[in-house]
Amino acid sequence: MHFASDNWAGAHPQISENLTRRAAGFVAAYGASDLDKAVEETFSAIFERQVAVFFVATGTAANSLSITSMSRPGGVAFAHREAHMIEDECGAPEYLSGGTRLHAVDGELGRVDPRKLATAVSEFDPDFVHGGRPVGISITQSTEIGTVYSLAEIDAVVKVCRDNGLPLHMDGARFANALVSLDTTPAEMTWRRGVDIVSFGGTKNGCWCAEALVVLDAEKADEIRFIRKRAAQLFSKSRFVAAQFEAYFEEGLWLETARHANEMATRLADRMAASSKIRLAWKPQANEVFAVMAKALMEQLRSRGAVFYPWKTPRSFAGRIAEDETLCRFVTSFATTPEEIDRFGVLIAR
Amino acid sequence: MHFASDNWAGAHPQISENLTRRAAGFVAAYGASDLDKAVEETFSAIFERQVAVFFVATGTAANSLSITSMSRPGGVAFAHREAHMIEDECGAPEYLSGGTRLHAVDGELGRVDPRKLATAVSEFDPDFVHGGRPVGISITQSTEIGTVYSLAEIDAVVKVCRDNGLPLHMDGARFANALVSLDTTPAEMTWRRGVDIVSFGGTKNGCWCAEALVVLDAEKADEIRFIRKRAAQLFSKSRFVAAQFEAYFEEGLWLETARHANEMATRLADRMAASSKIRLAWKPQANEVFAVMAKALMEQLRSRGAVFYPWKTPRSFAGRIAEDETLCRFVTSFATTPEEIDRFGVLIAR
Amino acid sequence: MHFASDNWAGAHPQISENLTRRAAGFVAAYGASDLDKAVEETFSAIFERQVAVFFVATGTAANSLSITSMSRPGGVAFAHREAHMIEDECGAPEYLSGGTRLHAVDGELGRVDPRKLATAVSEFDPDFVHGGRPVGISITQSTEIGTVYSLAEIDAVVKVCRDNGLPLHMDGARFANALVSLDTTPAEMTWRRGVDIVSFGGTKNGCWCAEALVVLDAEKADEIRFIRKRAAQLFSKSRFVAAQFEAYFEEGLWLETARHANEMATRLADRMAASSKIRLAWKPQANEVFAVMAKALMEQLRSRGAVFYPWKTPRSFAGRIAEDETLCRFVTSFATTPEEIDRFGVLIAR
Amino acid sequence: MHFASDNWAGAHPQISENLTRRAAGFVAAYGASDLDKAVEETFSAIFERQVAVFFVATGTAANSLSITSMSRPGGVAFAHREAHMIEDECGAPEYLSGGTRLHAVDGELGRVDPRKLATAVSEFDPDFVHGGRPVGISITQSTEIGTVYSLAEIDAVVKVCRDNGLPLHMDGARFANALVSLDTTPAEMTWRRGVDIVSFGGTKNGCWCAEALVVLDAEKADEIRFIRKRAAQLFSKSRFVAAQFEAYFEEGLWLETARHANEMATRLADRMAASSKIRLAWKPQANEVFAVMAKALMEQLRSRGAVFYPWKTPRSFAGRIAEDETLCRFVTSFATTPEEIDRFGVLIAR
Repeated sequence: MHFASDNWAGAHPQISENLTRRAAGFVAAYGASDLDKAVEETFSAIFERQVAVFFVATGTAANSLSITSMSRPGGVAFAHREAHMIEDECGAPEYLSGGTRLHAVDGELGRVDPRKLATAVSEFDPDFVHGGRPVGISITQSTEIGTVYSLAEIDAVVKVCRDNGLPLHMDGARFANALVSLDTTPAEMTWRRGVDIVSFGGTKNGCWCAEALVVLDAEKADEIRFIRKRAAQLFSKSRFVAAQFEAYFEEGLWLETARHANEMATRLADRMAASSKIRLAWKPQANEVFAVMAKALMEQLRSRGAVFYPWKTPRSFAGRIAEDETLCRFVTSFATTPEEIDRFGVLIAR
Repeated sequence: MHFASDNWAGAHPQISENLTRRAAGFVAAYGASDLDKAVEETFSAIFERQVAVFFVATGTAANSLSITSMSRPGGVAFAHREAHMIEDECGAPEYLSGGTRLHAVDGELGRVDPRKLATAVSEFDPDFVHGGRPVGISITQSTEIGTVYSLAEIDAVVKVCRDNGLPLHMDGARFANALVSLDTTPAEMTWRRGVDIVSFGGTKNGCWCAEALVVLDAEKADEIRFIRKRAAQLFSKSRFVAAQFEAYFEEGLWLETARHANEMATRLADRMAASSKIRLAWKPQANEVFAVMAKALMEQLRSRGAVFYPWKTPRSFAGRIAEDETLCRFVTSFATTPEEIDRFGVLIAR
Repeated sequence: MHFASDNWAGAHPQISENLTRRAAGFVAAYGASDLDKAVEETFSAIFERQVAVFFVATGTAANSLSITSMSRPGGVAFAHREAHMIEDECGAPEYLSGGTRLHAVDGELGRVDPRKLATAVSEFDPDFVHGGRPVGISITQSTEIGTVYSLAEIDAVVKVCRDNGLPLHMDGARFANALVSLDTTPAEMTWRRGVDIVSFGGTKNGCWCAEALVVLDAEKADEIRFIRKRAAQLFSKSRFVAAQFEAYFEEGLWLETARHANEMATRLADRMAASSKIRLAWKPQANEVFAVMAKALMEQLRSRGAVFYPWKTPRSFAGRIAEDETLCRFVTSFATTPEEIDRFGVLIAR
Repeated sequence: MHFASDNWAGAHPQISENLTRRAAGFVAAYGASDLDKAVEETFSAIFERQVAVFFVATGTAANSLSITSMSRPGGVAFAHREAHMIEDECGAPEYLSGGTRLHAVDGELGRVDPRKLATAVSEFDPDFVHGGRPVGISITQSTEIGTVYSLAEIDAVVKVCRDNGLPLHMDGARFANALVSLDTTPAEMTWRRGVDIVSFGGTKNGCWCAEALVVLDAEKADEIRFIRKRAAQLFSKSRFVAAQFEAYFEEGLWLETARHANEMATRLADRMAASSKIRLAWKPQANEVFAVMAKALMEQLRSRGAVFYPWKTPRSFAGRIAEDETLCRFVTSFATTPEEIDRFGVLIAR
């Protein structure tokens, strides 16, 4: 019963096999191989327009270099208070972007509140040299707490961007999970609405290490070539990422693994909803389930083999957890089985 | 006839297979798995002392974070003029270390000249705030041009370090090739002589992406945890690197692949030495061969399927190449076959 | 009626005259002159212990380099939400310190709430590489909104520092105003309580440009020499700052100018308290007065020659200003005259 | 006999007096005062076109922020090997510009050799992500060793800039000394030839602290507002710099002080030329004289009250100093008197 994180799972067999298949032979390094180029074309096909793709080592790198590419001296970028780049990246976005400040914006259920966002941005006069100036906005899709921005909710954020002339970044560490949750297309979820740059994550959804910046603005793309290399994020044997993405996209594997992960989350949520010992914190929309339970129960479940961790209470959920309770996160993935869920269901049903 | 670079080769089958073997199941992320820890122990066994190991994405990252860990405000680090970190890393060491200057030192055949090094260091008064202050020295083993520092030559560099209280970094992107060339041990080639931190590369020697900082000073190690994460270089599914190193070290695979690559380089050099059309620039000691030939011949050879590139003339070799000639680099790897060499030998023998 | 800011005033005549007196003759540059050294000794006398003093160009520089000297990779520093370094320094502390994050802590009346501070610090596990780690705490004395930490309140902050092994920085852009307000000594207000480093400002209190880092830890001091030069903050004709501080400290001029400024603030507050048109936002303790008035009145007063500006409502004062009202700041200085105050008093009394 | 440096002199009486004159009264801070604006207009008049002017604290700041404004990720800037920004700024340009590399170019007598410059630039392919890319060129006028680029020599450097699409920075720490030496105008010496940005120094020529970036490209100018503030280089009582420049430019004071300093250098050189004990290293063109003498003589002269220092031998002068000799620098300034020179002349004539 492994619910610790989707990055505790290994690699999907088809991805692993493709790596083996692509291991032989000589090809150009640093992204210049035919395979690299073919995969870049696949990205363009999937996004329904010519995009520039930059493989990087980690989601933190994708986020940090996105911020770097948007930033200017004295820059302030806006993100949800509980966004990964604020909570979990050790200051990498600030460090790599030359000191861009990340400004936390609140919002229910992991989503930036567009009115609060507009207010936060409006507090910075872009011409006032002392306060810093807005340079971009970032949203996470799906969010850190397993919810998803609807297309209309993305539109509302885009409106703030447009009103203020700001680019929009999407942290898509769990892009596929959001995509299948919304039953939409990459184009609809991104550039057709107004997203400018995407941290496109494959790692959590079945790859070993497959993260990419997907950039829609060709001019920025050229700059990012140098931004990436300067940040020591240009792989030499780049095809090892390309080979992962090749298998990832083949015959919709990525959507299948994401759909599976989401279904497992729903199944888990159903078990929880049926339990009197545990309560769902909010309805999961992707592959993460958050639940409140007694601390004693948490210990008991863990001692019986369930692997999961407590989670810091989101500000918008404050006051809804009793003293002897705790909020816990459960993450499902391509590798989660219905059997595991059901075994866990039995544990909480008892 | 692929001699473009050792990073044009893919992954060694045993490494590829191990990745597949390790793909299944759930394990802790971010380097906390049993496999990660076991591989760290293997490193300690190989180095014959407890070392701290930090996987990173690229050799550039390993070098840059090594420099970062050694540096202080106003820092100046010393390296060979043609070192990778000076010539080929797009300023990553300077950028990631907060502006540490890389000071180029000359020396014959890719090796820092210890006397010139001592002079260069002595030109910086560590107490004089205007000039910057020495913070470390870096050598590359094997060097960018396929030569190797003998143990005595390392000793001579260490002496300069000790005389000036400076730490010594070894860029070991081709560590194994140097090791088998010298027929020595990792301990002898590093800390027993006075090397403090190693960029330990596995990628060029048969892995997909397996680079590590190997740190001998435990205090620095703790700092590097944060230095690495802040630089967006901490892999989540870290075991995919661990699995590569596991296979890499198993039954001496890494020494075998390095020995093979070196032997192929020697074989290639022998073919060149026997040719009247081409001349060896200098004797290869690892897995890179440099040769001078007519530009016309270069084009001819390439049109007949030999893949290799011209190389910028090292300062110490200046004046030894005619107007119509060019210096070219040939790199061998675990995947180079004697047949390829021999086919090339035929081409130049004609 | 100039209440815009204490940096709208010029230089005190005694300081100006001393600059003229010190203008002639040759002395060593970069802080090595006898005058520089004598002033450094005066600092030590005033602080009642040997301190290291570093002149810098601006208060922002003093704050940013203080943060730099305390920081480490992945560092997070804590300051009041409305602190100058958060609100008004264009990201300089983050930029100059290599990306240190400034974490905003709330508190009534411009002072960090020690309990909230303790909670904020406790949310960062110094060993958890993802979240960043606490590296220091900063308080502003007197605060951005004209209040002062009592000695006991400083003690409460120091306790949080000690409990967490963190250094304490004091932004003393208005150090003297706080000092005379508390009727205490520099030693009592700083190191005897546990302050480690002070941004010591003379500019707002009658100098042209006289800012210094005052450092109590000798080891850090040596590092700051390089931190300062690397940040382009080492003056060549350093004596022009030394000459200002020489006059500043002579026969207690600095305390006299601060006392005068504070008295003018009290006088102004008294006039406001007596007015029915305007209400004091909170009791001034140094040289800044904040008042709430109708927007229409603000315009009227400004049209009659009073120079002052609206101020962003502090979070702890939210909800206490009506729609048609505005919060305004009035700053007094060595150059403010009782006559100006009284003229303004007449305006609001009408 | 003070020849240590022009920054050992204090402030010119007219500049000092103007500071006193401007000390009274309230004016807007941060460069918004009428005086600041008037001085900016004076700069435009002097440069014969609308320029943007940014006061900063030090010449190092002016240089570093110029480089920052020109740079891009992976940037390499070119300057003479013995340029101040390479030799004497503790890595500030690299640090403040996010890691831009300074590439040393040789040239006789302190001037960049245009052919060597062209070669150096050509070694970087602006599209090759590994090597870094050229972002700008910097020359020093007058140079670190007291020589001056003729207008034709500037043209030759500009040609390299234009051939490569690179901006040109002029480090004018001793701008006035070069100007009067060439008997030309600021416009002729800068933008009419192709200089884009100038570090305009007043400090060494009679001010206390008056350094400015003078920027010809309006678009860059807006960016520099933030670059400056982010670097903690925006003075609050900015008029104290404005007041210095006001007096500096009044009735050509700056040209007069520079002319005086240059004349004193010529007088000193004449005394040396007439001496058999000492020899001029090269002909001075501005306010610095370099001479070779026996070490014993140096000690003797210093013991008799002459203040001057040895200077590191420029690469282009290597081999021209005997073992028992030393190269020394003598700097003259507005404050140097003919009497001092003559007294020194007597010492070396004996």
